Amino acid sequence: MMKIALDAMGGDFAPKATIEGALMAQKALPKDVQIILIGKEDVIKQELTLLQAPTDSFPIVHAPEVIEMGEHPTKALSQKTNSSIAIGFGMLKQGAADALCSAGNTGAMMVGSMFSVKPIEGILRPAIAGFIPKVDGRFGVIIDVGANADCKPEMLAQFAILGSIYAQHVFGWDKPKVGLMNLGEEEEKGSILTQAAHQQIKALGDKINFVGNVEGRDVFTTAADVIVCDGFTGNVILKMAESLYDIFHEKNFLDNFTKLFNYEAVGGSPILGVNGNVIIGHGISSPTAIKNMLNQARLQVEADIVGKIKKAYA
Amino acid sequence: MMKIALDAMGGDFAPKATIEGALMAQKALPKDVQIILIGKEDVIKQELTLLQAPTDSFPIVHAPEVIEMGEHPTKALSQKTNSSIAIGFGMLKQGAADALCSAGNTGAMMVGSMFSVKPIEGILRPAIAGFIPKVDGRFGVIIDVGANADCKPEMLAQFAILGSIYAQHVFGWDKPKVGLMNLGEEEEKGSILTQAAHQQIKALGDKINFVGNVEGRDVFTTAADVIVCDGFTGNVILKMAESLYDIFHEKNFLDNFTKLFNYEAVGGSPILGVNGNVIIGHGISSPTAIKNMLNQARLQVEADIVGKIKKAYA
Repeated sequence: MMKIALDAMGGDFAPKATIEGALMAQKALPKDVQIILIGKEDVIKQELTLLQAPTDSFPIVHAPEVIEMGEHPTKALSQKTNSSIAIGFGMLKQGAADALCSAGNTGAMMVGSMFSVKPIEGILRPAIAGFIPKVDGRFGVIIDVGANADCKPEMLAQFAILGSIYAQHVFGWDKPKVGLMNLGEEEEKGSILTQAAHQQIKALGDKINFVGNVEGRDVFTTAADVIVCDGFTGNVILKMAESLYDIFHEKNFLDNFTKLFNYEAVGGSPILGVNGNVIIGHGISSPTAIKNMLNQARLQVEADIVGKIKKAYA
Repeated sequence: MMKIALDAMGGDFAPKATIEGALMAQKALPKDVQIILIGKEDVIKQELTLLQAPTDSFPIVHAPEVIEMGEHPTKALSQKTNSSIAIGFGMLKQGAADALCSAGNTGAMMVGSMFSVKPIEGILRPAIAGFIPKVDGRFGVIIDVGANADCKPEMLAQFAILGSIYAQHVFGWDKPKVGLMNLGEEEEKGSILTQAAHQQIKALGDKINFVGNVEGRDVFTTAADVIVCDGFTGNVILKMAESLYDIFHEKNFLDNFTKLFNYEAVGGSPILGVNGNVIIGHGISSPTAIKNMLNQARLQVEADIVGKIKKAYA
């Protein structure tokens, strides 16, 4: 039985949206996937009743505290040991859950990843992977999208491996093409960081399928399946891509490609390189987004991404 | 009489596209704007004849050499002293031209700006301004888009001033809103660079209208008229925005907003902070792009951008 823990209290529209999403996921996911809700038991049961679902629809792990969106992550996580996120990390660490999903305080999810389940041995800094639609209708991986605003070249080389493992085993792509986001195609181009990173990624040899530098114009193309960049650049790219959905929607530019820009389509971003499957959702997560985040967690557990990354660094 | 020098040999489709663009601009621009072509005289005259225009349509400054697209900028500019770009900078420096436009080797245009006309006193590093469509149908300014891949906070503070002066005097916007591209709205967020830059830009006081941090999702919105960033980030953003035009075009998503994504609509990017009006065009410049670049040069000369920047740093 696979166990996916969901922070029922996390997100702007929680607990209504999270619980509704959990109910949707329960119908859609295989029977051997169990969703565990973490949060205030009475609130969750009340919400289930309002949604006309049995109060025993899910196992509930009671968490009397909530880390709010605006709270300082480190302080909140160390002080609110009975918060849904703190308890979730405890479950992940003890093996009581195979994955932890939350649309709540991103910083707290990052801090929990770093100090509770901790980075996998050999990983310098975990990174957040994001997903951006490609013109061929698939999603591309972009890593890092915000965990590390300032990076060293060796971190980018690790992101290349993390992203490649994810794309290969979760998306099932053979030898995913890994590109380094840069100013130009030539390898001597770029910032101090990307010039050095290019050489380090190249030196990985056949550990990954490095296709060299890519540029801003390649974000939506199939030039690379996995785009590697520092967390500042990746955050700007991801948010810029996401903002297109509103434009497409307002102008009624809707087709199989543009509808993928809806953040709901993916649901969440995994933190890669830590000892556990941790997925963070958008603050504004709708029930559909929550459902898709839970499904994504399932795929990541099935693919044993943590095990694959450990093996790469063993 | 305003004199705009055009490198007739620069660009993938030169000299045909440049000369055709010059003819288009000549018809469109006021009579007191003179376009001067720099390049191989016989080639230019032959091209004019092919285009069924008189061979004396423009004053021609003969330049027997050409700096090719792939050449090393510094080396090429110092060795090919009779190239169209080298001669163009000479004209700019001597006052024989009020502006220099080229769709040729961007690096050579940058090197010429640095070592021929040179940065304005007080300017740490000149920057390239780019233009990105806003949902309200205007163009926003983004600075830097590639001259400086690695930046210091004080450089970003200067870019804020340069971009603001350009937006105010070329686009005619009163108190343009200047935003710093960052990871989040809160001023303590960001990379080491943007955290420090935020404070330095804030310290400019009423020299500019600083609206604080903006994010990737604000590139196309009216949150800021001028977006300040390092040249790496700006280059990625600009190329990503440009790549949308092909997507819009292919899908027939064409309206008053999306058609602005056509690079031809603007034509060129000014190098700001140097002692002269220098504008670089896209390598693939079409005649329409050349025409619009020449018009943009005219607006920049009329607005006396160089004088305005000098005054700000006097």
